[in-house]
Amino acid sequence: MIIAFIGGTGPEGKGLAYRLAVAGLEIIIGSRSAERAADAAKEIAERAGVSNLRGAENIDAAREGEIIVLTVPFDAQAATLPPLADALNNKIIVSTGVPLVFDGGKPGIASVPEGSAAEQAQALLAGSRVVGAFHNLSANKLWAGGALDQDVLVAGNEDEAKNDVMALAEQIEGIRAVDGGALAASRLIEGITALLIGINKRYKTAAGVRIVGV
Amino acid sequence: MIIAFIGGTGPEGKGLAYRLAVAGLEIIIGSRSAERAADAAKEIAERAGVSNLRGAENIDAAREGEIIVLTVPFDAQAATLPPLADALNNKIIVSTGVPLVFDGGKPGIASVPEGSAAEQAQALLAGSRVVGAFHNLSANKLWAGGALDQDVLVAGNEDEAKNDVMALAEQIEGIRAVDGGALAASRLIEGITALLIGINKRYKTAAGVRIVGV
Repeated sequence: MIIAFIGGTGPEGKGLAYRLAVAGLEIIIGSRSAERAADAAKEIAERAGVSNLRGAENIDAAREGEIIVLTVPFDAQAATLPPLADALNNKIIVSTGVPLVFDGGKPGIASVPEGSAAEQAQALLAGSRVVGAFHNLSANKLWAGGALDQDVLVAGNEDEAKNDVMALAEQIEGIRAVDGGALAASRLIEGITALLIGINKRYKTAAGVRIVGV
Repeated sequence: MIIAFIGGTGPEGKGLAYRLAVAGLEIIIGSRSAERAADAAKEIAERAGVSNLRGAENIDAAREGEIIVLTVPFDAQAATLPPLADALNNKIIVSTGVPLVFDGGKPGIASVPEGSAAEQAQALLAGSRVVGAFHNLSANKLWAGGALDQDVLVAGNEDEAKNDVMALAEQIEGIRAVDGGALAASRLIEGITALLIGINKRYKTAAGVRIVGV
């Protein structure tokens, strides 16, 4: 299974790619720049001690990946995705983005006409199967490499695609996937990220979430 | 410390009052109807095995309570609170409400002009100190009486009032309070309730939330 990251050279992409590489998956790190992609891929591969990881321009990552993980910043999503739509047709797209805003330094969620970053991605990629996941994992914590013990809430409108992404999330040691509902629930799950960012600041930690009673 | 519930005869009010009564707090159950309030108070007192619990009309509960817990349904909040504003002046008001909507059976959060149920309560009670808390506790689970093991996220703009509500939440056995940020974070915390309702339906459980890494 080839997992390709669109915009994979930032902290979220690198952190997730590192954990999935450690789990043994083949990874492509996509970027607008083939050179930056190759540099990031080399850095992640060295850190993970694996060789099945390479860089590519986003369009090639989109073509070659079987499951596609979007780790472009939310603000860049609307410009980045349309040129990739044909290459991404019919594929499972994992939306990890969060429309963060900081109002007087306090993290919150911007209003998105489609409802959430994930639903915006679905609107931009009408032929793809968008699933929201991985929003609430700290990029720093993923990259730092310590043990994880938290849940990934997964939201999507197609059960098969959602189940595939839940299985992917559980490839990461210490992660349990929880079915968060339909794609529209992404708005609620993305909101948890804003909450965690505030908690991280106040408690000087890298917090995550667990659903108890499941 | 007298804890008064406004609209305390429904499941959320009864469940929370039961747990706080067990913790030894003096409770007033408010209702529009003194008779329904007395009936609910009697039922809760018997279940908790305590005597320091009584019913009252909402206006009297508002006058006599030291910390006030709002457990009116969100839809009734805008009509219920204005007549109580004078009695609630300067008091700590705990907003537990969630502006739930069900779109095709799927739980979500209605858009509230003020941002959240808690901020609407603050706008209606300008002289009070509103703090959001207890949104994510299952009323059924509270009332059923088994062990709890989850967090209560608390949001407010005044540290002193927030700390008082965090201490109140931790009177309930099995509950840890986590500082969720400013009152505007209530929108994010209220959203978790919608997420949990969906999870409860899919997993046939009464789920709660824990913040890990804190």
